[in-house]
Formats: sequence, structure tokens, C-alpha cells
Amino acid sequence: MVLIVQKYGGSSVANISKLNTVAKRIIGTKKRGNRVVVVVSAPGDTTDELIELASEITASPEDREMDMLLATGEQKSIALLAMTIHALGEDAISFTGPQCGIITDVSHGKAKISNINTARIENELKKRKIIIVAGFQGISHEDNITTLGRGGSDLTAVALASVLRADVCEIYTDVEGIFNADPRVVPDARKIERISYDEILEMAGSGSQVMQSRSIEVAKKYNINIHVRSTFSKKEGTIICKEAPMMEEVVVAGVSHEKDNVKMAIIGVKDRPGIVAKIFGALSDNGVNVDMIVQSSAISGVNDVSFTIKHKDLKKSIKIMDKVKKALKAKQVIYSDKVAKISIIGVGMKSHSGVAAKLFSILADKNINIQMIATSEIRVSCVIDVKDMERAVRAVHKGFGLSKK
Amino acid sequence: MVLIVQKYGGSSVANISKLNTVAKRIIGTKKRGNRVVVVVSAPGDTTDELIELASEITASPEDREMDMLLATGEQKSIALLAMTIHALGEDAISFTGPQCGIITDVSHGKAKISNINTARIENELKKRKIIIVAGFQGISHEDNITTLGRGGSDLTAVALASVLRADVCEIYTDVEGIFNADPRVVPDARKIERISYDEILEMAGSGSQVMQSRSIEVAKKYNINIHVRSTFSKKEGTIICKEAPMMEEVVVAGVSHEKDNVKMAIIGVKDRPGIVAKIFGALSDNGVNVDMIVQSSAISGVNDVSFTIKHKDLKKSIKIMDKVKKALKAKQVIYSDKVAKISIIGVGMKSHSGVAAKLFSILADKNINIQMIATSEIRVSCVIDVKDMERAVRAVHKGFGLSKK
Repeated sequence: MVLIVQKYGGSSVANISKLNTVAKRIIGTKKRGNRVVVVVSAPGDTTDELIELASEITASPEDREMDMLLATGEQKSIALLAMTIHALGEDAISFTGPQCGIITDVSHGKAKISNINTARIENELKKRKIIIVAGFQGISHEDNITTLGRGGSDLTAVALASVLRADVCEIYTDVEGIFNADPRVVPDARKIERISYDEILEMAGSGSQVMQSRSIEVAKKYNINIHVRSTFSKKEGTIICKEAPMMEEVVVAGVSHEKDNVKMAIIGVKDRPGIVAKIFGALSDNGVNVDMIVQSSAISGVNDVSFTIKHKDLKKSIKIMDKVKKALKAKQVIYSDKVAKISIIGVGMKSHSGVAAKLFSILADKNINIQMIATSEIRVSCVIDVKDMERAVRAVHKGFGLSKK
Repeated sequence: MVLIVQKYGGSSVANISKLNTVAKRIIGTKKRGNRVVVVVSAPGDTTDELIELASEITASPEDREMDMLLATGEQKSIALLAMTIHALGEDAISFTGPQCGIITDVSHGKAKISNINTARIENELKKRKIIIVAGFQGISHEDNITTLGRGGSDLTAVALASVLRADVCEIYTDVEGIFNADPRVVPDARKIERISYDEILEMAGSGSQVMQSRSIEVAKKYNINIHVRSTFSKKEGTIICKEAPMMEEVVVAGVSHEKDNVKMAIIGVKDRPGIVAKIFGALSDNGVNVDMIVQSSAISGVNDVSFTIKHKDLKKSIKIMDKVKKALKAKQVIYSDKVAKISIIGVGMKSHSGVAAKLFSILADKNINIQMIATSEIRVSCVIDVKDMERAVRAVHKGFGLSKK
């Protein structure tokens, strides 16, 4: 019998009427002859509200107690959803993360799943019950409640799908699937039918609001097909799976963009071994995440090193780079917080040359200046002025033939 | 080193400022050289709100899922309280009922504690930590979350005090202790300094808003001293303990009253064995709780049987008694929902005669008619017209010399 793992996000269980919609959908899945395991997030904005509440008590709540607090959100959801399913006449049983054997390490707030004891779930599945599992949470081997960090419910779903050898892991959201560009920017953005793990990882890393990378990585490792689809529609969404032969024809799968970028550059650094390590060592020691890095080729033994960071790290980075400048006797540190990043992603790039060149010429035709370039095997990213961003995304989307047919 | 178990009710942890007051009180207790285990209820009206939420889904939520839902309330409290204590610089650790080994039977919604594995609490106490325990909840041997029913947090506190051999169990409320009459009715009601388990049990059973009987019964069984006191005052409250020699001088410890009474009577019942069993069997089979029962002595083989019930059971009871009337060929069923019950309680009654007579004469002096009388070894109760109730309580309170000195 087919086993389906379904995950519903917080907005899908935010109130009684939505719970009803979700419950009917779950019952429908079961009635079509499937076994069903459901993972749910905390209702609506509950998690943010609890974080806010804790922040009123202290700026630095202890991680263990924060997890104790946050775990109540998903527990509320599973109880309410199980009740709703009962009220509609089907049998369901809810489990907290600890109850269904999701064992994690002790890193509160960002715990990693170490293993899952599926005995209890499998036992209840045999009784033909619908299983409702609290996402985002587990229990450490020290018997403390842990949470898995942002996107944790997706991770719970994918991990359960993997250990239970589910046929598919359905991720329900309030959009119809994954689009080949942001529909708010590109009105004729198209829903992607199938996309590979690697492409979706690059999209997540380049600004697309899709699933968290951690869940995709687990799905890739265990080869779990993920179906991202809408809670409120019967339409097929987007399947995330291994690279399939049919995909090869598609050179560019999608266009991503990201506004939250700051470009920094340190000018006039001596070209000596270990210099770059010193710059980025100082940043990472202070928890600053650096995205793109570009180093101009050294002329007369002096280098310029440019990189991008997030806005939230700007203040901290200015201080750090000021110290680095003095230590390295560099000339100057400059930055611009008015930049955006645009990326094209597609496994087809590997075997098609000229994709990057085409991107550059599309941008040039629109008179858009490229400030930085970075590439991976299946992605090309450009940093441009933020005022050009939306124009650029639309032009690239059209230029690569990604619009609706 | 002295071990103190403290229990704070929902109103004591309803918001951040109250959490702060409670946290400071707990830290103060520890700093005076005590070990402290704290039991907390769900914040404010959380439990009622969760019940309301469930009732919007279904009129009969499954008990297991209801417990899953309700348990989130106390879990929220323990996390927030532990954070507050940390923020004030002391070390604390929170435990859910399941985490601190409160094992119950499988009666969801009204579970009974079967045993408590204290290893984890004792281990953390050795590390000089303040222990924060979620009241009202436990875990069944089937690994399901259970709740202990109304007053469950008091029960958690008393049960923990018993297994940990605590020196005292402090129950914090928003009143200063237990009064010898309801201060809303009797302005010069006096706070009781010490009272026995038996007296408090009779008071709880006769309308006084004190602790639930279950907790007192456990405290009596294991001889745990309970100190009922105010969260917001340093004053001593009321100590509930074994009967002490000094108590013997006090004949009447307090006056209780209860408005929520209906008097029913079935008139003209044949005086035959088994008749009374039929009447009260029918009521109890339908879940009606009967309080006082009075049977007039049979004259010419015909009896009148009177009893009191709660208002909520009136409709149901009318239907039941109508059937009983037909089955027993009785003459008539009458009822009055305009009655109240007034009781005096005191262990001293055992050795002092004339206490009941004095009560009757106080009421007679005030021209208050007594409709029913019931007595126990340490209690005398009278059913009177509800319009006379407040007058009666004040007169009895004064007549037995219970006013402030």
C-alpha cells in the first residue's frame, strides 16, 4: 500500500476553518487507499508570538527553555488536527516529536536529527490510523525537548518519509508550487513541473522563497520525491526529484533574485598568501555569512577583494573590516547596500555553453551594469544595482523563454 | 537542607510582571538556604481558552487529544518561568510532567498518579538548581500525555512533596489563606492559622472555595503540611496539617455556604426495602451527584424522601424522577431551586455537645426556617431559603465567635 507523508505549514492550520480543509484533504488521501503520515507546524504566527513573549522576559533566553516554549505550538496543532479528523469520522492519533521517536543531538534551537525510532508510528499505521506528527521538534538523548530550527517541519516530513520509505513527501503551502521566477515580479512566471534537487538547492541559495536547503539535502541523500503543492487546490504542484532525462532539454529552470545584499570591497590589499584567509576568517569568526567573493587578478602585487553579505551583518562587518584594513595595511574599505543579486539556475547549463554569455548580453541590452559575477556548475549569478533588479528579472525570464506558453 | 515545594496557580503566572514577582519569591526562598521545587499551572485563562477552542471543533473531543492540547498550557508556563529566573541570575530547569517521571493511569482528563520517578529531579536538585515542574500533567505507561483533572496542579505539588519528602508544600493563590467564612459575605471573616485535613475536606465539600479534595486527601495520607498563602504578600497564610492538640479548643473552625443547590422531594413512597436504592440508583446511573439525603420516618407505611442536587442536574433529574415516580407509584415529585446550604465545620464538635442545637437556635433567633439537616462527625449542614443565606452566614459566624478579635 502506498505511504504518503504530508506536511502542512502554519498558515494551513491557522484557524478552525483551515483545519477543516486540511482534515478533509487528509481523509481524502486515506480514502483513496493510501497510508498517511501528516506533519504539521505551529498554527499561524504562534512561533513568532512565542519568540516575542520570551524576548519580553530576556534578550537571551536559555536555548533549552526556548525549545520547551516553542514546542508547545506544534503540540497545539497536532491535537486540534487530530480532533478535527475525529469529528469528521476518521481515526487519527497525534504524536509529539519525542513521542514518535525523533532523536536529535543536544544543539537546542538548531538540533540535528540523529535517528528516528519508527516502531510506534508503524504500529499505529497497521491499525489503519492517520498519524499526526508535530513538526520542528525532537528529543535529545538527554531527554530534553529540542527544536530543529527554521524550516524544521519540512525536515521532519522529509526525514520521516525517508525512514518510513514513503512513496512521496507532499509539502503543502499557500502557493501552487515552485515558479521559475517570483510571480510578484514576473507576472507570467510559470509553475515548474519537475526540478532536480541540485537546481532547487541553488534556487534556495540565491533568494527564491522555496524550501530550506537542509530538507532538500536530506531528500537528495535518501532520494525522496518531494511534491510541493497548494493546500487549497487540487492541481499538481512541483515535483522535486533526481535529475531526469527529460530535464536535459531545459537549459534554464528558473530565475532567482535577492534584494538583501550588501557589496563590500577592501581595496589595495597586498597580494600575499594567507591574506584572503585573514579577511574571511575575521568575518566568519564573528558569525558573518559571506555569499559571493570576487578577487581581481593582482596587478603590480596589489589586490581588490569584493564580497557580498546580508544587510543585518553590515554594521558588524564595517567594524571588522576596519580592523582588517589596519592589520593588512590596505588602502580602503568601501561598501554599497544598494545592490541586488540575480541568478539563473539549470542543470542543462552543464552541457550547454554560452548560457552565461547570453545572460550578460540580455542585461547589456537593457543597459544594466554588472558589478560582480559568480558561477557554479548549474548557476550564474550577477550583482547589479537594486534599482535595476525587477527590470532585469523580467528581461532574463523572457530572454530565456521561461514565460507561460 | 529544607526542601520546599511551591505551587503557583494560573493567575500568578498570567503575565510577565507576575512571572517576575513569582520568580523573585522563588529565588528568595532558595537564597534563604532551601532547596526549591516549583509547580505551575497554565497562564491565566489558557486552559479555558483551549477547552473553548476544542469545543469549536467538536462537542466531544477525544480525551487523549484533549490532554495533548491542554498540556501545552503548563509547558508554556514552565518555560517562561525558568527564563524569568535565569534572567534574574539564578539557575533553574523546567520539566514537563512526563519528563519528571509523573506516571499515571490511562484515564485521560482525570488520570490518577500511580508513581513518580524522582531520579531526574533529585539529580538536578543536587546541582543546586531550582526545579520548575508543569502541574496537572503526567504520562501513562502507554507513553501518552495525561492530565489530572481540575485542581490537578495542587495534586502534582502535594504528590511531589510526598515522594520527595518535602518539609512543606506551599500553595500560592491570590488570597491570603483560608478564611473561616467567605469574606465577600462576612466582612469580618478571619483568616484561619491552622486547620486539620478533615476540617478542610468538609469545608471543600460544603461550598468553600479552597483546595480540591483530592489534593487534601493525598496530603492527609502522606502527612504533608500544606501552607496556603498569597503570592503577593509576605504574611503567613493557613497551615493545613494533622489535628493538633491546640485545635481542640476551637469548636467551630469555619462557616461554609453554597448557593448552587436544588432541593427535590418524592412524596408518598411506599416504605419497603430497596425503594431508596431505586431512587438514588436511577440518579447515579445518569451521573447526577446527590448531596444531602433526608427520609422522614414512615407513618402508615408511606415515606417522603428529600435530597439536594446541583442546578446543572435539575432538568435531567426532573425527567428521571418522573419515571421513578411512575415506577414506584409515588404521589408527587416536588422541587425548589431557591435553596442554599449553610454548614459549620470543626473537629471540636466531636467532644463538644450542643453545637448543632446552638446552630439551630441562632437561625431560629433570626427567624430563618430550616428545611433539611445533615450532620457528620465534624460538620452540621442546614438547607435554608436562598434569600436568607447571607444573613444566616453572618449570624452564625458571629454567634460562634468567629469574628476578628
